[in-house]
Amino acid sequence: MGNELTSRSVDYAQWYNDLILKGGLADYSAVRGCMVIKPYGYALWENMKDELDRMFKETGHVNAYFPLFVPKSFLEKEEGHAEGFAKECAVVTHYRLKADPNQKGKLIVDPEAKLEEELIVRPTSEAIIWNAYKDWIQSYRDLPLLINQWANVVRWEMRTRLFLRTAEFLWQEGHTAHATSEEAIEEAEKMLHVYADFVENYMALPVIKGVKTPNERFAGALETYCIEALMQDGKALQAGTSHFLGQNFAKAFDVKYLTKENKQEFVWATSWGVSTRLIGALVMAHSDDEGLVLPPKIAPLQAVIVPIYKGQEQKALVDEKVHGIMASLKAAGISVKYDDSDNARPGWKFAEYEMKGVPVRVAIGPKDIENGVVEIARRDTKEKKSVPSEGVAEYIKALLDEIQQNLYSRALAFRDASITEVNSWDEFKKAISEKGGFVSAHWDGTGETEEKIKEETKATIRCIPLNNKLESGTCVFSGKPSQQRVLFAQAY
Amino acid sequence: MGNELTSRSVDYAQWYNDLILKGGLADYSAVRGCMVIKPYGYALWENMKDELDRMFKETGHVNAYFPLFVPKSFLEKEEGHAEGFAKECAVVTHYRLKADPNQKGKLIVDPEAKLEEELIVRPTSEAIIWNAYKDWIQSYRDLPLLINQWANVVRWEMRTRLFLRTAEFLWQEGHTAHATSEEAIEEAEKMLHVYADFVENYMALPVIKGVKTPNERFAGALETYCIEALMQDGKALQAGTSHFLGQNFAKAFDVKYLTKENKQEFVWATSWGVSTRLIGALVMAHSDDEGLVLPPKIAPLQAVIVPIYKGQEQKALVDEKVHGIMASLKAAGISVKYDDSDNARPGWKFAEYEMKGVPVRVAIGPKDIENGVVEIARRDTKEKKSVPSEGVAEYIKALLDEIQQNLYSRALAFRDASITEVNSWDEFKKAISEKGGFVSAHWDGTGETEEKIKEETKATIRCIPLNNKLESGTCVFSGKPSQQRVLFAQAY
Repeated sequence: MGNELTSRSVDYAQWYNDLILKGGLADYSAVRGCMVIKPYGYALWENMKDELDRMFKETGHVNAYFPLFVPKSFLEKEEGHAEGFAKECAVVTHYRLKADPNQKGKLIVDPEAKLEEELIVRPTSEAIIWNAYKDWIQSYRDLPLLINQWANVVRWEMRTRLFLRTAEFLWQEGHTAHATSEEAIEEAEKMLHVYADFVENYMALPVIKGVKTPNERFAGALETYCIEALMQDGKALQAGTSHFLGQNFAKAFDVKYLTKENKQEFVWATSWGVSTRLIGALVMAHSDDEGLVLPPKIAPLQAVIVPIYKGQEQKALVDEKVHGIMASLKAAGISVKYDDSDNARPGWKFAEYEMKGVPVRVAIGPKDIENGVVEIARRDTKEKKSVPSEGVAEYIKALLDEIQQNLYSRALAFRDASITEVNSWDEFKKAISEKGGFVSAHWDGTGETEEKIKEETKATIRCIPLNNKLESGTCVFSGKPSQQRVLFAQAY
Repeated sequence: MGNELTSRSVDYAQWYNDLILKGGLADYSAVRGCMVIKPYGYALWENMKDELDRMFKETGHVNAYFPLFVPKSFLEKEEGHAEGFAKECAVVTHYRLKADPNQKGKLIVDPEAKLEEELIVRPTSEAIIWNAYKDWIQSYRDLPLLINQWANVVRWEMRTRLFLRTAEFLWQEGHTAHATSEEAIEEAEKMLHVYADFVENYMALPVIKGVKTPNERFAGALETYCIEALMQDGKALQAGTSHFLGQNFAKAFDVKYLTKENKQEFVWATSWGVSTRLIGALVMAHSDDEGLVLPPKIAPLQAVIVPIYKGQEQKALVDEKVHGIMASLKAAGISVKYDDSDNARPGWKFAEYEMKGVPVRVAIGPKDIENGVVEIARRDTKEKKSVPSEGVAEYIKALLDEIQQNLYSRALAFRDASITEVNSWDEFKKAISEKGGFVSAHWDGTGETEEKIKEETKATIRCIPLNNKLESGTCVFSGKPSQQRVLFAQAY
């Protein structure tokens, strides 16, 4: 079948790539660093997007759409932002091709169609959006402005990996404007909680909420809030960020508002985003050596029914029974497919749906019908069970909830077992290199120490957890005094 | 208020632009030819997108996502396509900016980061998609492949107009692959009917279904099906196209499949698309000198309630009554907003919601409450009526249906009155220049005549209607024999 995966223990990175390709989530494309999101992967993204979009709207946000291109000069306006973002970008310099006069059928860039100012394909949209906000915001009555955008962005990454790091990716970016610093901070924190809610309750992936150190902040932010998740190989993955941008962009683009007291003040900003990278996190967190394992709440297909039969007479018998079961599952709101294609044996189909991570598989044959049962296999634990076909929809509905819960509990247990408290540099190095996971250690609060630890161990400070316990200690690296532990890990 | 529109009779083009801006649908951006779709306009697009997406899925299509960039050499592969599309495009030539060594804070394109092959921002995705299909299609079992993509595309138009013609626009593009020519033609026709269904039943805009002449076909197509709508100024607008692409792209990208008979054959293709241009059509077809008029089925807001009161005591009385009405409207599935903001008088609010095209406005004051009524104004006819507040949700629900139907009937009557049959060149010129609308005339079937008519009158053949009546006649321009009438018009 050629469908075997490299096992996780042999080569985790290869296992991940195999899985994305064989699970039908994505494919490489002819454009360096860009991927094709295949229908199954896109259906997963649609389910994730729908839930997030609902959550954004429930918290008062509206969607809009801003241009793909950012004039080069706009990127220069906010210094920190330019430093962080205006580097590895796709640059549009011309607006026309023409027939090559020297080679029939070939095209060349028309040298006469050079743009006066280069356009950058958006790596993020703060600059172009704040330039629009300048015209939209006049008075306190125009605030808060709570806008989100679903879009594609491009960052010219040198080393790319499907979903985790691609030159083009899909994401949402929220960009809000507020009258006060307090309101903006509240918004940035609120969206962090929305992200955590989504990732934990829909993706079944526990996260640690925290703030980034100054070194790891978003370019142009005063504070970057983040959620950090743990993958099965012990590496951390940043699953979403929410930034308090202060008045940096308002000042760069001259966005002021008239207060109730008739004074002109600069506006306060946030931005926040999650991307198709979440699909990479989802895959790495739950899947196994047989294939994808998808949480029922966002799986494109929650159940599949495979008929077991010999000959057309048995097939007709099974078809009739399945017809009724399909109707009851659909009535219960379960997305289900009946795979009665005749070009593969049941065993092949079982393997195929395991690869695709369909949470529940139902098999049914003449014997089952005689006994009034169906065989149900759950993808997460691979347990199989004969259950009465009467009431099977309710059974599966409850089972889907149980699988969702089990995936979360399993990931939580693994994550919690992967947090190691260390109190010396030797312990630190040992934990990072041998055990992996999060290492909780005292740190002296300097960017210098952070940099040196990164150089020696490849571990970065993933976050300073929200509501972190204050306790005096000494930095594991420098021996200087410290007020709190922070979480280190190697990361994607 | 500065909210008056230029009237249609004074300057139709200016009326349209004013309306898009003052109705809050879109705004100009800092990037030449690119617009910002504002929240109200984007909410309209979301409603349209949701219905279309549902229709695509109900007809067996799935969504996927392909790269934004097309390598230049890909555009060269299909000759007709290259001729038509590889011209006015955004061309990415570099992948890095760097600090300008001569000017602090400025950025320049890094000359060392020049791409080996230029990348074109997709003007349409046939090339990049068919390159992927090459790997996805091996046997007849892989067919049909029914994929749609929601995406942004860029065409470097010289003269742009909000929604109607912008450098970047949002659209969907379906790209399907089939085993036979018949199946592909059936698909192209099916999607034309889906588009017509959507535009007529959701946008309340009657369309004429037809095929384009060879001159007007999509670059690379063997047949282009289209739906044509009529705007209030008598110009036609192409609202959607569906293309039978034959084996052109399969041959250009070498996409073959193994038939049941074990033979290698080239695959047959279609593509079809509609874009944010539809919003331009919607605005121009129904709106009036007071503002937008939006069909209830896709309006972002179907009803608005405006309180009429003096002082806080009356306000409290009205609030309580509205509270109950809001609940009953929401329960009936009506999207509704209570605008009790205290920064504008009722008259100002009335004008504002007329500008925004909200189909139904409800006004309610203490007198109304005393009499057990509310005042209901419909946007399409501007009629006002006092109706019992008891059962108002049912009343509004029925009224929304009536408005939807009325908009369609009104547009249909106008369209039908705007089709003129002519039998001589003088009649033709007179109809085009004085009356506008569609002109039904005999044509000799040559591209040459078509070109000359366009040069003299700016009218193009909008379509040869499907199921066109065959009748012998003579071409109005050349006097040569003709088998059928075709529809001419000046067009957007």
